[in-house]
Amino acid sequence: MTDRPPFAETHVRLAHGAGGPAMRALIDAVFLGQTRDPAALARADAACLPFGDGFLVITTDAHVVSPPEFPGGDIGRLSICGVVNDLAMAGACDVAALTSCVVLEEGFPLETLRRLHASVERACAEAGAGARVVAGDTKVMRRGELDGVIFSTTGVAFANRVVRDDGLRPGDALLITGTIGDHGLTVLSARHGLGLEGELRSDVAPLNGLVKVALAAGGAQVHAMKDPTRGGVTGALTEMAEKAGVAVRLREAALPMTAAARAAAELLGIDPLIVANEGKALIAVAPEAAGTVLAALRAHPLGHAAAHIGEVVAGPAGELLLDTGFGTRRLVSRDADPLPRIC
Amino acid sequence: MTDRPPFAETHVRLAHGAGGPAMRALIDAVFLGQTRDPAALARADAACLPFGDGFLVITTDAHVVSPPEFPGGDIGRLSICGVVNDLAMAGACDVAALTSCVVLEEGFPLETLRRLHASVERACAEAGAGARVVAGDTKVMRRGELDGVIFSTTGVAFANRVVRDDGLRPGDALLITGTIGDHGLTVLSARHGLGLEGELRSDVAPLNGLVKVALAAGGAQVHAMKDPTRGGVTGALTEMAEKAGVAVRLREAALPMTAAARAAAELLGIDPLIVANEGKALIAVAPEAAGTVLAALRAHPLGHAAAHIGEVVAGPAGELLLDTGFGTRRLVSRDADPLPRIC
Repeated sequence: MTDRPPFAETHVRLAHGAGGPAMRALIDAVFLGQTRDPAALARADAACLPFGDGFLVITTDAHVVSPPEFPGGDIGRLSICGVVNDLAMAGACDVAALTSCVVLEEGFPLETLRRLHASVERACAEAGAGARVVAGDTKVMRRGELDGVIFSTTGVAFANRVVRDDGLRPGDALLITGTIGDHGLTVLSARHGLGLEGELRSDVAPLNGLVKVALAAGGAQVHAMKDPTRGGVTGALTEMAEKAGVAVRLREAALPMTAAARAAAELLGIDPLIVANEGKALIAVAPEAAGTVLAALRAHPLGHAAAHIGEVVAGPAGELLLDTGFGTRRLVSRDADPLPRIC
Repeated sequence: MTDRPPFAETHVRLAHGAGGPAMRALIDAVFLGQTRDPAALARADAACLPFGDGFLVITTDAHVVSPPEFPGGDIGRLSICGVVNDLAMAGACDVAALTSCVVLEEGFPLETLRRLHASVERACAEAGAGARVVAGDTKVMRRGELDGVIFSTTGVAFANRVVRDDGLRPGDALLITGTIGDHGLTVLSARHGLGLEGELRSDVAPLNGLVKVALAAGGAQVHAMKDPTRGGVTGALTEMAEKAGVAVRLREAALPMTAAARAAAELLGIDPLIVANEGKALIAVAPEAAGTVLAALRAHPLGHAAAHIGEVVAGPAGELLLDTGFGTRRLVSRDADPLPRIC
C-alpha cells in the first residue's frame, strides 16, 4: 500500500467512478476505512474466499453505460461479460451462477428491454454452462429520476487455484490479448454521433474461455491477470504495479490497435491507453513461458491479435514507462477528464 | 403456473417494479420468456442450486428507496437486510458472503455516504460472522441522471436443507413474526413530511437469527417462508398461495400493528396489508408445530410480537380471504396506486 493524502472531499465527483486515483481514494476512505476483512482489503476485482480445498470466487459490477446500445454490444452483454471477466481474471473460468438486477426509468421501451435481455442470454451462452442468471430483481424509478437503465450483476465461481492481480515479478513478460481502446472509443463515438460506428466496434466479450487456454498453456507461470476496463491499460497496470511494488515498461509500437480506434482516438483527442476495454486481458507471465502462452492466446478466436507489449521491471512501485521508439515517457493514471458512463 | 393474458405493454410503468401482478407479468414475459433454467423458473426470492450434499443459495436485490435515510434505517441497512432475509427465507441462515454495488449521483454528500456505509457494516455485524461485503463496485452518474443513490447487493450462502415459498399445505398455520406496515409507512411518512416519525420506525432488520430459531423449533414442519416486502402481506401471500395452488384465510384482528402504523395508514389512506415490511417473515407451519414455533419466535428479540394470523385452506389458487370479524372480504394483489421507491 502506498501512502495516500488524507481524504478531505465533501461531495461525489465524476472522477470517483472513473477507475483512477480518485476512485481508489474514495474506496479506501469510505468503503474500506473500517474494515479488517482480508477479502475486501485485497481490493481485487474479485474476492477469493478459501473454500474446501479451493476458493469461492465472487465479484460484482454495476453498469451505467450510455447509450445502452452501441456497435458491438449493449448494457446487457456488458453486464454479463463484466463479471465473467472479473472471475476469469482470478483464474475462475467456470462460472457457477450469475445474478442480475435491473433498475429502469419509467417509460423505458420494453422492446429495448427485450433486446437487452436477449443479449444477456447470448452472452451467458458464450460464457459456458454455468453462466446463467439464477436470481434477479427489477426496480422502477419515476421518469426523470434515472436516465434509462442500470444493470447490476454478480458472479460466483469455484476455483482450485486463483490468480491475483498483484503477482507481477521483475522480468515477467506482459501480454495483452488483443487491440486496445475499442470499447470506450465506440461508446464515446456513438454518444457524440461521430459517425465512426461502421468500423469501430466494442470488444465486449466473455474472456473465460480465452483465459482457460492461457492458464492451460502457462500454468503457475501465469503470475497475474487484470482486465483493463475503467482507466484503461494505464489504470490497470498502475494498480497492478503499485500492489506488486514494481514498475512496468511498455513498447508503444507493440500495442495492438485497429485503424478505426486510432482514428477515433485522434478525433476525440483521447489517449487510447486510458480508454476502457471490455474484452481484453493483461497477463503477466514468466519470461520462459511467454512464447507458449502467446501462441495459445493467438490460436483462440478472441486472442488472434494478442501481443507481447512490455516487461515488468524493478523500479518505483506503480511506475509505468512507455518506450515510444523515440524515447521514454512516463504514463500517469489520472482523473483529469474522466469519461463517465463508458461501462 | 396460472394462465396469464398475453403481455402487450410497450413501456415500463411504475407498477412493473411494485411487486404485484404487473411485475410478475413483466418478469414472465421479458426475463423468463426464453429461459429453461429451473432455478430462475422457480421465481423464488433466492435461487437454490444443488451443491454437494446441500445447496448453494444466492439472491440479489436493488434498493432505490427515497429518502435514503428514514427513521429506523437507511438504504445501506436495507441493502444488507434485503438479501440476508431472502437467504433466510430459503432456510439459509448462515451467510457466506455479500457483494455491494453503489451507484451515486455526482454531488452526493460524502458525509451521507459515510453514514450509509457505517450502516451497512452494522447490519452485517448483526447478521453474523459470514455476512461481510467481500466485493463491491462504485459508479457515478452525472448530476440529474440519477436521483441520489442506488445500492445493489447480492448474498451467497450454503444450506443443507432449503425451505421454499411454495410449500403451503391446507391445514398449515400461518404465522407472522411481528407487526405489519412499519417500513413502508415510515418511508412514505418521511417522504411526505407527515411528522409521524417520532413514533413510526422502519422494521428493517436481518432475520436470519430469528429464522434459525424458528427452524430449530419447527424442523421439517416449517413448510414455507416468505418476507412480505414489496406488495406487503397481500402480495407475498398471493404469490405463495398461487404457487402452491391453495387459498389462505387471515383473521384481521390477529394481525399485529402498532398504533403509530395504524394512524399513518389511516392518514395516508393506504391498506397496511399491501405495504412493504423489511424485518418480518410469513411462516407456514404444520398445525401441530404452530405453538412451539410461535413460542420460539416470541422468545427472540425480533419476534416478540409474533402472531398466528390465519390458515392455509383448500380453495382457488392464490385466493386470500380476510375475516374482519363482521364478515369475510377477498384481498386482491393489485397494481393500482403503486408505491414507488419504498425499498
